[in-house]
Amino acid sequence: MNANKEKTTIVLFSGELDKAIAAFIIANGAAAYDHEVTIFFTFWGLNALRKDEEVYVKKGFLEKMFAKMMPRGANKLGLSKMNFGGMGPKMIKHVMKKHNALTLPQLIEMAQEQGVKLVACTMTMDLLGLQKEELLDGIEYAGVATYLGDATDAKVNLFI
Amino acid sequence: MNANKEKTTIVLFSGELDKAIAAFIIANGAAAYDHEVTIFFTFWGLNALRKDEEVYVKKGFLEKMFAKMMPRGANKLGLSKMNFGGMGPKMIKHVMKKHNALTLPQLIEMAQEQGVKLVACTMTMDLLGLQKEELLDGIEYAGVATYLGDATDAKVNLFI
Amino acid sequence: MNANKEKTTIVLFSGELDKAIAAFIIANGAAAYDHEVTIFFTFWGLNALRKDEEVYVKKGFLEKMFAKMMPRGANKLGLSKMNFGGMGPKMIKHVMKKHNALTLPQLIEMAQEQGVKLVACTMTMDLLGLQKEELLDGIEYAGVATYLGDATDAKVNLFI
Repeated sequence: MNANKEKTTIVLFSGELDKAIAAFIIANGAAAYDHEVTIFFTFWGLNALRKDEEVYVKKGFLEKMFAKMMPRGANKLGLSKMNFGGMGPKMIKHVMKKHNALTLPQLIEMAQEQGVKLVACTMTMDLLGLQKEELLDGIEYAGVATYLGDATDAKVNLFI
Repeated sequence: MNANKEKTTIVLFSGELDKAIAAFIIANGAAAYDHEVTIFFTFWGLNALRKDEEVYVKKGFLEKMFAKMMPRGANKLGLSKMNFGGMGPKMIKHVMKKHNALTLPQLIEMAQEQGVKLVACTMTMDLLGLQKEELLDGIEYAGVATYLGDATDAKVNLFI
Repeated sequence: MNANKEKTTIVLFSGELDKAIAAFIIANGAAAYDHEVTIFFTFWGLNALRKDEEVYVKKGFLEKMFAKMMPRGANKLGLSKMNFGGMGPKMIKHVMKKHNALTLPQLIEMAQEQGVKLVACTMTMDLLGLQKEELLDGIEYAGVATYLGDATDAKVNLFI
């Protein structure tokens, strides 16, 4: 941690495409302005970090159900508004492509390239039965104490 | 920008009446305490800034669909809870009137009178096909860099 | 108020179990690190503070309808995702129990024991027709000015 750098943290609690895009646009913007940026993924926000292929890990019954019901990765998220059974995300992706906007997987990749710290909340991973093998490579694992440590040093702290 | 003034920023991402009311009550409160306040409207939050009459501008097919499906202005927003196909907003508006609480359009007007900076996110305007002619007069237009500049100077930064 | 202590504030606007749990986990974490913590309950967030028994107070018609339709207390909240008509909260409660995680009522109790300031927003109590007798003991009552006073002194300010 560099004491002279501005710091920004985002808790990504929500598992929707539009909110995840907003979180990564702010995070990438802040990183471009040389902030140290942390995104802390908790609850449904963890779904944005899932690998899109199925990963075979040993799970209990409820954990299997959660795994099946929750969207597997950044490409599968729905919208918080006007989801229309999946039509909404298709429309948004279509207009984003038309405007040459980065997709969510590209935004995540850019964040990793810019050194944005992506942290999966280990407590909610436990609750939802998500295991490290199921999440993207190159991310960190921590709990609320680590988040609070970063947030207390930051000027911009958002909960999305 | 006045270096001695407290600063407050709000990202209004959500397009619901109750969340927009909360955003403007906090913004107007902060302005009354002499904070410099910015509300940055992005994604569905932009709908709170739409003029309530139809504005004729040239649009592509998807942009027309978005324009039709999204609520046109502060008077048309739904609730995040208990919307009941539009009954919920009617109930809330009724109790607000009974308690002499300001309506959302009145809260927006008060914000503008108090010098709260209302900024429409140009990137999401592009995506959703919203044009300046369709939004309220007297607002500003900017991107995430401007938001981050304001937020880095502010103590209170909220994402709603 | 102690000028040397870090301060954290959370606006709990949402009335869902998962969001309330997230709010209290962050609040209890911050209190454990010796922050002065305020949770300001407004709109649907107030439902987390309702006593779970029915309290007989004089109300108008709309206020009675709100009281009936809104969840009565921390044990009755739904989920923001995968609610499945009440199955989702049962699943979450089940996995939380399995992992020995604290329930929401336990998290609230711990917050009160740690001196987290729980503040009910009087303006939205008025709107929704909620009266002090219906809310938990030991909480405070205030408006947006009090919230802003706390938030301006705090480094971590979240809207949930």
